[in-house]
Amino acid sequence: MKKQIRVCMIGGGRVGKNHSRAFSYIPGGKIVAVVETVPQVREETAREFGFEHQFESLEAALEKIEFDAVVITTPTPTHLPLTALAAENRKHIFLEKPMALTIAECDAILDVVQRNSVFLQLGFMRRFDPEFVAAFQRIEAGEIGQPMMIKTNTHGPGLPPAWARDLKTSNGMLAEVNSHDWDTLRWFMSSNLERVYTEVANFKGAANQVDTPNFYDNVLVNVKFESGALGMLSGICPCGYGYDARVEIVGEKGIMQIGELKGQAVVVCTDRDHGLVTPIYRTWPERFKWAYINELSHFVACIQDETPPRAGGIDGRWAVAGVLAGTQSFLEQRPVYLKEIINA
Amino acid sequence: MKKQIRVCMIGGGRVGKNHSRAFSYIPGGKIVAVVETVPQVREETAREFGFEHQFESLEAALEKIEFDAVVITTPTPTHLPLTALAAENRKHIFLEKPMALTIAECDAILDVVQRNSVFLQLGFMRRFDPEFVAAFQRIEAGEIGQPMMIKTNTHGPGLPPAWARDLKTSNGMLAEVNSHDWDTLRWFMSSNLERVYTEVANFKGAANQVDTPNFYDNVLVNVKFESGALGMLSGICPCGYGYDARVEIVGEKGIMQIGELKGQAVVVCTDRDHGLVTPIYRTWPERFKWAYINELSHFVACIQDETPPRAGGIDGRWAVAGVLAGTQSFLEQRPVYLKEIINA
Amino acid sequence: MKKQIRVCMIGGGRVGKNHSRAFSYIPGGKIVAVVETVPQVREETAREFGFEHQFESLEAALEKIEFDAVVITTPTPTHLPLTALAAENRKHIFLEKPMALTIAECDAILDVVQRNSVFLQLGFMRRFDPEFVAAFQRIEAGEIGQPMMIKTNTHGPGLPPAWARDLKTSNGMLAEVNSHDWDTLRWFMSSNLERVYTEVANFKGAANQVDTPNFYDNVLVNVKFESGALGMLSGICPCGYGYDARVEIVGEKGIMQIGELKGQAVVVCTDRDHGLVTPIYRTWPERFKWAYINELSHFVACIQDETPPRAGGIDGRWAVAGVLAGTQSFLEQRPVYLKEIINA
Amino acid sequence: MKKQIRVCMIGGGRVGKNHSRAFSYIPGGKIVAVVETVPQVREETAREFGFEHQFESLEAALEKIEFDAVVITTPTPTHLPLTALAAENRKHIFLEKPMALTIAECDAILDVVQRNSVFLQLGFMRRFDPEFVAAFQRIEAGEIGQPMMIKTNTHGPGLPPAWARDLKTSNGMLAEVNSHDWDTLRWFMSSNLERVYTEVANFKGAANQVDTPNFYDNVLVNVKFESGALGMLSGICPCGYGYDARVEIVGEKGIMQIGELKGQAVVVCTDRDHGLVTPIYRTWPERFKWAYINELSHFVACIQDETPPRAGGIDGRWAVAGVLAGTQSFLEQRPVYLKEIINA
Repeated sequence: MKKQIRVCMIGGGRVGKNHSRAFSYIPGGKIVAVVETVPQVREETAREFGFEHQFESLEAALEKIEFDAVVITTPTPTHLPLTALAAENRKHIFLEKPMALTIAECDAILDVVQRNSVFLQLGFMRRFDPEFVAAFQRIEAGEIGQPMMIKTNTHGPGLPPAWARDLKTSNGMLAEVNSHDWDTLRWFMSSNLERVYTEVANFKGAANQVDTPNFYDNVLVNVKFESGALGMLSGICPCGYGYDARVEIVGEKGIMQIGELKGQAVVVCTDRDHGLVTPIYRTWPERFKWAYINELSHFVACIQDETPPRAGGIDGRWAVAGVLAGTQSFLEQRPVYLKEIINA
Repeated sequence: MKKQIRVCMIGGGRVGKNHSRAFSYIPGGKIVAVVETVPQVREETAREFGFEHQFESLEAALEKIEFDAVVITTPTPTHLPLTALAAENRKHIFLEKPMALTIAECDAILDVVQRNSVFLQLGFMRRFDPEFVAAFQRIEAGEIGQPMMIKTNTHGPGLPPAWARDLKTSNGMLAEVNSHDWDTLRWFMSSNLERVYTEVANFKGAANQVDTPNFYDNVLVNVKFESGALGMLSGICPCGYGYDARVEIVGEKGIMQIGELKGQAVVVCTDRDHGLVTPIYRTWPERFKWAYINELSHFVACIQDETPPRAGGIDGRWAVAGVLAGTQSFLEQRPVYLKEIINA
Repeated sequence: MKKQIRVCMIGGGRVGKNHSRAFSYIPGGKIVAVVETVPQVREETAREFGFEHQFESLEAALEKIEFDAVVITTPTPTHLPLTALAAENRKHIFLEKPMALTIAECDAILDVVQRNSVFLQLGFMRRFDPEFVAAFQRIEAGEIGQPMMIKTNTHGPGLPPAWARDLKTSNGMLAEVNSHDWDTLRWFMSSNLERVYTEVANFKGAANQVDTPNFYDNVLVNVKFESGALGMLSGICPCGYGYDARVEIVGEKGIMQIGELKGQAVVVCTDRDHGLVTPIYRTWPERFKWAYINELSHFVACIQDETPPRAGGIDGRWAVAGVLAGTQSFLEQRPVYLKEIINA
Repeated sequence: MKKQIRVCMIGGGRVGKNHSRAFSYIPGGKIVAVVETVPQVREETAREFGFEHQFESLEAALEKIEFDAVVITTPTPTHLPLTALAAENRKHIFLEKPMALTIAECDAILDVVQRNSVFLQLGFMRRFDPEFVAAFQRIEAGEIGQPMMIKTNTHGPGLPPAWARDLKTSNGMLAEVNSHDWDTLRWFMSSNLERVYTEVANFKGAANQVDTPNFYDNVLVNVKFESGALGMLSGICPCGYGYDARVEIVGEKGIMQIGELKGQAVVVCTDRDHGLVTPIYRTWPERFKWAYINELSHFVACIQDETPPRAGGIDGRWAVAGVLAGTQSFLEQRPVYLKEIINA
């Protein structure tokens, strides 16, 4: 039997809990502690999942207990310092998206990880979703021919917290909601993005008393790839109809649709004037349940087998570049090239 | 240009109106008169569709005007006398299902039609539905291999009128609702039925003050075909969720599903706790709109071209045999062979 | 009975035949002649549909026979002269999209039609498709709330003829394939478009020996509406997977999807490694069969009832403005405002 | 933390492996040994899942190691002796369906389990499938009203082994393939079955060199419930199109469909003449992956919490009664009452 990987969970909030739940299906890994600054959240999470230890800081955890790896689920501005501290202590790192706020931060992360020879995996769980994985393999096998056009969207319920909708502290919805789409665009098309043009709208801000500057709750990005292909990314948040993450690709030979609105296959009709009713995916933990289990299984297995994980820092950096170009585009009302961001 | 076929519509009720509506899409045919005994219905139908003439009886129509064909939509007990009168006056006949109440009546209809060399088409519109037609052609072409098992159902809204649920006056739901299924079983399987076993249930009779003897609102028939294949027929009426007519066939090579609950492709979700809502087929005129147009176009074209129509009297007679065997089965709680009915 | 409207079909090609076929379901109208310059096409169409008359030019038809209206299905550059001639002879006009090549031509058409008090209906058949109509009514009734984002696409098989892909003679794919989308955007959102940004790609030009300047076979347009809402339009042609015309709208309260890839409800599986196979819409006449019948019925009924038709010249002009703004955008690689086009 | 439950897996074949795989997602339970008579299978399974121990017999396992429970996945005739031995040694028992070959054996199992105060859970995993569970809860909550008619089917690929198609050694397909359907009928309808009528067919026996007496590969059962409701059960095996397990229920208020043919939401079309292609469920481990995890989690949790499991011996006995009545029906070509079986 392989060694069981000991993991320190950093952040005990919504994502930390989701990943802790996923770990309960992964015999090869075990969360031995949670690091969380808010005492109440820390205690609640530790109790819910039966963690042995809890700490206020990663420093405290490093001092007191042994572990192999960290899973970082805290807000974006903490990503660089936490990653640096973990790497310098030779811990492998699973880092939630978005990787960082700037390309400079991404580069600093890539550097510290490389210098310390630890693994870095980004939380792009769609790369581990059974449907997305099957789709990618079929695209790569040439089933739909050379990809010409891709459309990806993430629409979700719930107004993001203030920090997550403020361009200064999080780069806003394009980062917090659509990071996965930026990664999917590049992954499925096997091409980097060349330029983007973004339009945004603010429909619900006033009703939600949002006074964040440049707040938007709808975004549509037009993408030109280096390969010559076209792409579209859309984000809507909050939207009350469910959690909606779908992709559609047209290649020279055909079309492929990945994902659907429909959840459980339990269809009911009790009124012919109303129609058939089918459950919808309500939340991201529900839609991507296996994807979360699979990405963390992969991380654990990579540490056990000493092989570098898929979905690494380079992928995270390109997603951040997309976010920054997309944001600059709507602020300046012009198409923005990714090389403007990367070479800046 | 071919001669326009002049048609006398017999019966101005729900089916008569449906078929009159279908005729408005058929330039080759024209309804010149309606025969209807109820004055109010007669006048309303004549006015709605702009018919030139209206009569109390077929005799009156035959006396006063010229026409080529009749469409008979009146209750089952009238089918033999009306067909005989029309045939003896050399009118071609489109006869609604069920053909008759007994095999003896069916035989009398077949005889009078043959003696007078007129065409007889039964109202089995599913044989003209684009989906059913495509399915039959694909089965016949061997796409799913030798058919092994078929399931067909018709569930519909609305309590039938008293005469249509009384075994004595109509043979009940197996005849009035499921005649199409009896025909579909035999058509799709390219085999006659050998024996049937029927179970019935009465769930809503009391609430609807139905005191008809042997009334049932749910029926399930188990069928053994002469080919050795198996079949299932179900009927439910009244049911509030829509008009539901679907078929599923498994052959040695695969499965085929024909029809679906879903109506219009307009899908809406406004509440993630409720789910996706899709319109359902509400009524038979909506579900089989093209089938009605196509079957009547076929009838008109057959008269113009002097070629016998598909869906003739032999098909109608086999459907009646199924109805009678199915009814006898639940009355006697035993499997009943069709040859018991046909040779009786 | 209302007077039967006599129609002269101008253009006997693919669209002319499609509309002639639709007229066979419309008792209120009758095509009395076809005008077509190519003798072989003219004779073939006249013979197929049994037209009494055929002419080389509209002038000849006007001289020889009586009729009430024209249906113009010839290439875009002919629209203004034919419309003017018909209007000046007091014929009502059904004009295929796109209305014209320029805003100036649109204005000239609007002017001549108004001066002669004839009706002008544009061939935006989606406004008469049962699913699109139901969707619009439900949006208007507030079912999904204030529309925030719309996505519409038309992807179709078959390389367009040379004139239809050349910006000079037709305004290219944005006009020839996507005119309906431009109209749908404005119709469903109840808002004019403010600005657009377009990306195009050319994947199949070389393989098809296309040397038309600025040829593209993929186009994605990002739209900002005057209402503040966002929109996306995509076009792909040729694409081999079918005829694909779908719309998705997210409003403040929910999502609505209109149309689907799936055609007939006949689903087959004969190999579990291959999967379920469902027919797809193959062509536009198949997808929009009822829409074509309904739009021409509406045109005939409007003439009979002397009421102006829906889908008029103003709608056609806005669609042309979209085409021109969208084209200028990719040529100049910048967002283009529709007022730049309309006030030019 | 609760005590980890130690489990001995009895049978290392297809089902044993499936359940071992499910246990890898269940931290509360651990398989400590496999019992299997065929040395090669035993070693292969032990190696694949890294079991510490392997034995030729349950006796040997009981003698050598400590454990809390057994999971019995061996052929039906072994169920009674293995259950008795386990129960008498105070091991909790998870027993695969069908429970036994006869009602007498079922009664003996119920007796030994009760006398020894151990838990018995039957392998009716559909009772733990998220879709089936949600459906049951919604039926129970009255969403579709009083159930009137239910249809359930299990069609699967692969000719069963000789023992599993022989009525003498297994009760044949009604037991081996359709045991789940018998349980689902009773569970969803909250009613015992009153009588059944069965038709069978043999289409592929000859081609597969099957000489088992009374072999059938298609079966259709008509069911009358004690509640007055109707039901239909169908079985087909082998069938090449996939693994197909669906249920449809009509209640007084509406219809509910549970399950679907469609597997992954990855839809592709590359040829408009072929159509849309969607993956289908290929196998039962794929279709019911979560159901297997959930049923075994439940078993483990019941032992930990000392609460009796759902899906117990009484449910298993009723399913066996259905199998026996259904079999007698086609052998004697008459409806058979379940009380004939239970009181025999």
